[in-house]
Amino acid sequence: MTTLEFFYDFVSPYSYLASTRVEAEVAKVGGSVRFRPFLLGGVFNATGNKAPIEVAAKGPYLQKDCSRWAKRLGVPFAWPARFPVLTVLPLRAAFAAEKLGKLVPYSHAMFRAYWVDGRDISDASVVEEVATKAGLPGAALIAEAPGYKEALKAQTQEAVDRGSFGAPTFFVGQEMFVGNDRLDFAVEALASAFA
Amino acid sequence: MTTLEFFYDFVSPYSYLASTRVEAEVAKVGGSVRFRPFLLGGVFNATGNKAPIEVAAKGPYLQKDCSRWAKRLGVPFAWPARFPVLTVLPLRAAFAAEKLGKLVPYSHAMFRAYWVDGRDISDASVVEEVATKAGLPGAALIAEAPGYKEALKAQTQEAVDRGSFGAPTFFVGQEMFVGNDRLDFAVEALASAFA
Repeated sequence: MTTLEFFYDFVSPYSYLASTRVEAEVAKVGGSVRFRPFLLGGVFNATGNKAPIEVAAKGPYLQKDCSRWAKRLGVPFAWPARFPVLTVLPLRAAFAAEKLGKLVPYSHAMFRAYWVDGRDISDASVVEEVATKAGLPGAALIAEAPGYKEALKAQTQEAVDRGSFGAPTFFVGQEMFVGNDRLDFAVEALASAFA
Repeated sequence: MTTLEFFYDFVSPYSYLASTRVEAEVAKVGGSVRFRPFLLGGVFNATGNKAPIEVAAKGPYLQKDCSRWAKRLGVPFAWPARFPVLTVLPLRAAFAAEKLGKLVPYSHAMFRAYWVDGRDISDASVVEEVATKAGLPGAALIAEAPGYKEALKAQTQEAVDRGSFGAPTFFVGQEMFVGNDRLDFAVEALASAFA
């Protein structure tokens, strides 16, 4: 158990916040991160959980809370004009990026496009452009994305089967931690696995 | 804004966890805490939010998460055999305790009875006994509790009107912070109000 699994969806602001430091935090204790994109909407459907935004009172608070976290972490953050967006396409394309050994830079680029630059990452031309600027073959990723429909479903189902109900979800072995605000607990568990 | 308002319900494990340190954390920055009991079920009804326990996958995780927090904070914690319980009675009696200037010790005693000793605090005889052992006039509190029906409703509604959707909820002025895991943000806001 020297690996922390990081399940995330680009549409999740708390996944973005976690993505900005998960590698550094895990490296501090000598571990490694496995990036595992999944479809948060699928998790909500499977578990009966609600997106925070579905509770009216949570909407404005969610934005404030994320801004407070971004300020604390010292990372750029801007609530996108379009929220939520469908992330099935960029998530499927993430598997194509993974096949090239480029899942991590691809994911950082996609998170940044949505949560910093406010781009509409449900749009294939945007995904292609963002991936290309990040040094990936954007057009090829878009072309290959449909072939990863089942892979995305399976990865989402795996997380649900292991207990996930939201994003981000971290696993250290079978120990599960849900939320950007539980990353420190997850890293502690990883550190104790080394002890 | 030198006061942090602490809205809580005895049925909420995260309220208990917050109650174990809220006074000490606020004292560190020179502020004070105002204890404000409210009915979490009323908040859920008003906002359409769900108790975490209503999402099946959250149940086992909730217990683990609370145990991790209790371990981190170094406080006793045991998931009660009966959960959830109706807390209307001990919450109404809390207002009677407040009238005697004893809301804080009463609340700590009630939290401990439920979240450490596993007592059924929906039972009047248990509330009476716990209050009495904490140095309060238990029988009188129980007798006076029905008179605070409207006070509890009003305090709950006030929290909802100010944006609350869960427990614990903290306010620093009109800045709201929801969850035991946001107490540090609330205390930071309080500290900056002194700066």
